[in-house]
Order: sequence, then structure tokens, then C-alpha cells
Amino acid sequence: MKNIKLFLTDVDGCLTDGGMYYGETGEEMKRFCVYDGMGMVLLRKAGIPCGIITSETSVIVKKRAERLKLDYLFMGVGRQLDDMKQTKLEVCQQLCQELGISMKEVCYVGDDVNDLDILAAVGYPACPMNARPQVKAIPGMMVLEQEGGHGAVRELCDRILAAKEQNTEHYF
Amino acid sequence: MKNIKLFLTDVDGCLTDGGMYYGETGEEMKRFCVYDGMGMVLLRKAGIPCGIITSETSVIVKKRAERLKLDYLFMGVGRQLDDMKQTKLEVCQQLCQELGISMKEVCYVGDDVNDLDILAAVGYPACPMNARPQVKAIPGMMVLEQEGGHGAVRELCDRILAAKEQNTEHYF
Amino acid sequence: MKNIKLFLTDVDGCLTDGGMYYGETGEEMKRFCVYDGMGMVLLRKAGIPCGIITSETSVIVKKRAERLKLDYLFMGVGRQLDDMKQTKLEVCQQLCQELGISMKEVCYVGDDVNDLDILAAVGYPACPMNARPQVKAIPGMMVLEQEGGHGAVRELCDRILAAKEQNTEHYF
Amino acid sequence: MKNIKLFLTDVDGCLTDGGMYYGETGEEMKRFCVYDGMGMVLLRKAGIPCGIITSETSVIVKKRAERLKLDYLFMGVGRQLDDMKQTKLEVCQQLCQELGISMKEVCYVGDDVNDLDILAAVGYPACPMNARPQVKAIPGMMVLEQEGGHGAVRELCDRILAAKEQNTEHYF
Repeated sequence: MKNIKLFLTDVDGCLTDGGMYYGETGEEMKRFCVYDGMGMVLLRKAGIPCGIITSETSVIVKKRAERLKLDYLFMGVGRQLDDMKQTKLEVCQQLCQELGISMKEVCYVGDDVNDLDILAAVGYPACPMNARPQVKAIPGMMVLEQEGGHGAVRELCDRILAAKEQNTEHYF
Repeated sequence: MKNIKLFLTDVDGCLTDGGMYYGETGEEMKRFCVYDGMGMVLLRKAGIPCGIITSETSVIVKKRAERLKLDYLFMGVGRQLDDMKQTKLEVCQQLCQELGISMKEVCYVGDDVNDLDILAAVGYPACPMNARPQVKAIPGMMVLEQEGGHGAVRELCDRILAAKEQNTEHYF
Repeated sequence: MKNIKLFLTDVDGCLTDGGMYYGETGEEMKRFCVYDGMGMVLLRKAGIPCGIITSETSVIVKKRAERLKLDYLFMGVGRQLDDMKQTKLEVCQQLCQELGISMKEVCYVGDDVNDLDILAAVGYPACPMNARPQVKAIPGMMVLEQEGGHGAVRELCDRILAAKEQNTEHYF
Repeated sequence: MKNIKLFLTDVDGCLTDGGMYYGETGEEMKRFCVYDGMGMVLLRKAGIPCGIITSETSVIVKKRAERLKLDYLFMGVGRQLDDMKQTKLEVCQQLCQELGISMKEVCYVGDDVNDLDILAAVGYPACPMNARPQVKAIPGMMVLEQEGGHGAVRELCDRILAAKEQNTEHYF
């Protein structure tokens, strides 16, 4: 895992536990996890760019990405409810081309059927414990011990940092 | 289950974990689950109309139904707190008549005592793991392994799709 | 339990799981449970008045009590943070006097040290599974199997209704 | 533990379960726990000053601290995302100096890598069950049985009060 050059993740079910808090204006809140945020902060300090790819278009996600100063944010990709435009896989391939890296150097976290294509294509596919069975069944899938929104992404970040022999304590 | 022609579900305790988030103006939020939403999207793509029947009248539920482009939304049915007008069972019977289908072709998800009548009448009654004991005791009840708001409805959707030999991967 | 003539409960930790959702204006939300609400609706239909006694003064609690059409709501009683004025026990005793019933005919649900006096005085003291050890240790305490905010109060309501040989199905 | 003269705690993951509720304006809510609040109220009544040290600067935390009438609130300390200014350790050392007490008389609750320095320096380091492995590995660490936001801090407060032979029942 020390060869990972790009870290991308889905939002709902990965950075959250799948909960969508609706109020009178539609979806009003998502619950993120402080541990996952710290994990991506540590990855970025270790030189690995981090980003989000989600089928939704949500100001909520934009705010979380800004807070964590993530390098990339792709929203409205591979829409669930409408005809698909660009898929998550296509977005990832295009980004790799721009960065001059291979899909085999990408780590992607996904949890549902609309993540199957991209998960099958990246070098380091991972999913939280609560991922759909079809996702867990992908060859080479790293099934994390934690659930989405409860530290799954942090667990993965820590594994990557350990592989790079980075001591996270040095950052504080 | 491949004969199911209509999918209906209750809200509180089925599409949510029963939590009702109150603020200074009354109930302000409900927590829905991304997996359940995707499940109903997949059902609709497979040609099965989906809808909600709830005793509440809530803009929150309306927003969630709109987001998922559900086919039917019946609110204020079989009110808990006031005298009942039309029951959930009556609403379901009337809808079947309009669609020219039988109650035996309906799948309904419920979890509490105000769902007993309709659950006893449909061909495919189902409930989340957290349903009340009286609900679980209905003959022919399919007790799901997941809890409401944490994938119970998705689990059911996946079972229906598997029975129809639909491969959900084809949609993405 | 068929002799119970009044049902009273604390809020935080009993009707909620103890969570207090704070925003920029202080506490903005509490998470209640649909099952508990239905339980008190069923109790009231069976002729048992229901009420809330809480040390807080909160519009949130008022809104929930109104929605459930509870008979009594006492707030700001036995304050945690200030000098105590009237205690929960005193409020309960006064209400019993007004209703012409005995403290032995009261069922009260509490979970923390500020509930110890009233719990020791009523005929039917009960607490959710998550109550503090000191509360669980009260002689005659009925420790419920469910947690606060996740059906503890409903469990108790169902036990009371069963003792009264009421069939909850009759209400729907 | 009867020698503890100052009680300090981190916020996210300690007074909360690590959840950060984001809306359209960024982080809009945190979920605190009534039991933890009562614990610090009891500590203060027993003469032990209580405070919060957090890397965030958040009105949400300020509101919670005000509600509990905490003695100290240090925010924006040892920032995660920017260059560090003053560390949590430095803030604690300075406060000890002002109060004329030793770091060995301080109890601090932390859960992540940015708490390592201060946890290693205080006399009574503690962490919730969900703390990062690096935190749990600190020599002398008291690993609590409860999780952050679900009574971990209360558990610790009760242990301290028991050590001081204070009977919490006396306060009510």
C-alpha cells in the first residue's frame, strides 16, 4: 500500500453510516466522523492527495470537503436517479490521466452497486464493514473492520500510513 | 416473490429507526437510509411501483418521497392520535382496485400495531427486526434481518430483485 | 400493575437515549422514539393519564408533549444546575393529592441521581437498561430490557396494558 | 484519584461519539450526552473545576460549556488543519501554573493522536473505549468502559467522586 498515489472515497455509507437527515427542505444534514477527517488530514500531510466522488450534488458534502481541505471533489457523478452522464470510473480515469498516475495506484472506498465498476478497476479497492454483499465480493477487496461514519476510512488511512512507515505521532 | 406488483412501506420504524428529531417547532428531522433509497430505485427500474403509507402528515416524508421519485404517497392515513378516517388497509385496497391487481400481489412493510390489518391482508407482509412482537407474530410474516433505517427495506428489495432474477449490477 | 392510575416519565435518557443535539443557539434537538409515543397514546386510550416531569425547561419537550396530547407537563423541576426549587417528588405528591390517588398508584420512569427520591416513593418505579447504577439499585425497581429512546417506555406501556388485559390490537 | 484538582476533556470523540452533523453552512450540530453533563456538574459541586480543551473553534462547544457552567474553555488549540499555535499541552501547563497545581493533579480525557502529548504529561490520563490505539497504548492510561458521547466522561466522574468518598445522592 506504500505505492498509493491517490485516495478517493464515496460519501454516503463510507464517510457516513448511510443516514440522511431530512427536514422540511429535503436533506438537511449528514453525520460525518471526526476520525475519518483526521485520517485524510494525515494522508494529505504524508503527501497523498485525497478526494471525494459522489453521485449526489450536495452543499453539505462541499462544506465537509472544504473543512478538510480535500484536493478533489466530484459531485453528481453516475447519478442514481437520473440518466447517468459521466460514471465514477470515467471521472477517476480522467483524473489519473491528468496526474500521470495509473489506476493501479489509486485507493477507492465504496459501498454500493454504483461503486462496482470503479472498485473493480482501481489497484486498492476498499469498503466499510456495512458495504453491500456485491461490493464485498469484488476480487482483492479490502473489507475494513469498522463501519462507514464510524471510523472505516480512518482505519484505512492508518493502514496506508503504517505501510509507508509514517509515524502519525510526528504530526503533533 | 417474483409476482409482486406493488411495493408499499410505512415510514417510522421502517424507513427510519423510529427516531423523531424534535426542535422548537416540533418534529424537524427524520433519519433515512441511503441503502433503502437505492433499493426502491432499483425496484422501480425493475418495473415495480413503490409507495409510502403513513399515519403522519409530514413535509419531511414528502421530501424523501420526491427525492426517490416514488409512485405513491399516502399521508394522514389511520391517524394514531385522532379518530381514524381511512385506514391503511382501505387505502391499499382502493389502490389495488385502481391498478387492477390483487392484494395478494402487494408487498407491505410495517412495524407497529396500526399496521396489523394491512399486514394480515397483503400477500407479502414484511417487517424489520425491530418490529413490535404483535407484528412479528402475523402468519406468513417475513421478518427481515436488518433494522428499520439501517437497511431493512433494502434487504427486502434485494430479495425481491433476486427472485425476479434481476442482476442489480446491470443498472450501473 | 393493573392498579396504576398515573404514568409519569423523565425525558433525557428515558424518552431519549441521553443525546442532546447542540447547535449555535444551544440545544436544538432531541431524538424521541415513535414506539414510546405510541405506547403513551395506548395508555391514554386505556384510561391512564400520562405526563412528563423534567428538570429542564425546553420548548422541544413541550412540542413532543403536545404532539402526544399528554395530560401533564412539568418543566424546570429539581433543576440540575441551579438551586432546586420544587423537587420532582414534591410535584408528584401534589399531583396525587389533586387527583385523589396514592403515590403507590403511580408509575414513574427515571434514569439518573436526580430521580432517586421520586423513584423510591412511587409504587411502580421503572428505569431503562441504560440507567445509572444507583437508580437500578432501588428496591423494587423494574429494570426494562430496552434503552431510553429505543423503546424502553413502550416496553413498560405494553406490560401495563397486558396487566390490564387490554388487547392493543383493538385500538386499530 | 482523590487528589485530582482539575478535570479537563477534549470534545469530539470524548463528549461526543465523534459524529459531526454537517448542513449547508458547515458543521451545524454535535450530539452531547446528558450523563456526561451531570457528571461534570457533580464534579464541580464536589469542588473540582472542569474545562474543555479543543482544537476546534465552535459556537456549538461554547454553548454546551455555558450550559454546564464549566470553569474553562480553550478553543482553537493545537489546530488539526493549520499550523499549530499553542498546543493542548502548553495550555494545560499554563493553567496549572496559574492555579498553582501540578500536572500530576490533572485528569485529562482524550482520544486521538493530537491528544498524545498532554495525555502523556498529566497525572490521570483517560480515554473512552473508542479511542485510537495509539492513545490506549500510553502508559498509565485509564481506558473507560463506555464510549464517547455515551457516558464515558460520566463513568470517569463517578470514579473520581467514589474515590473522594462523595455520595452523589447527597446532591439531590
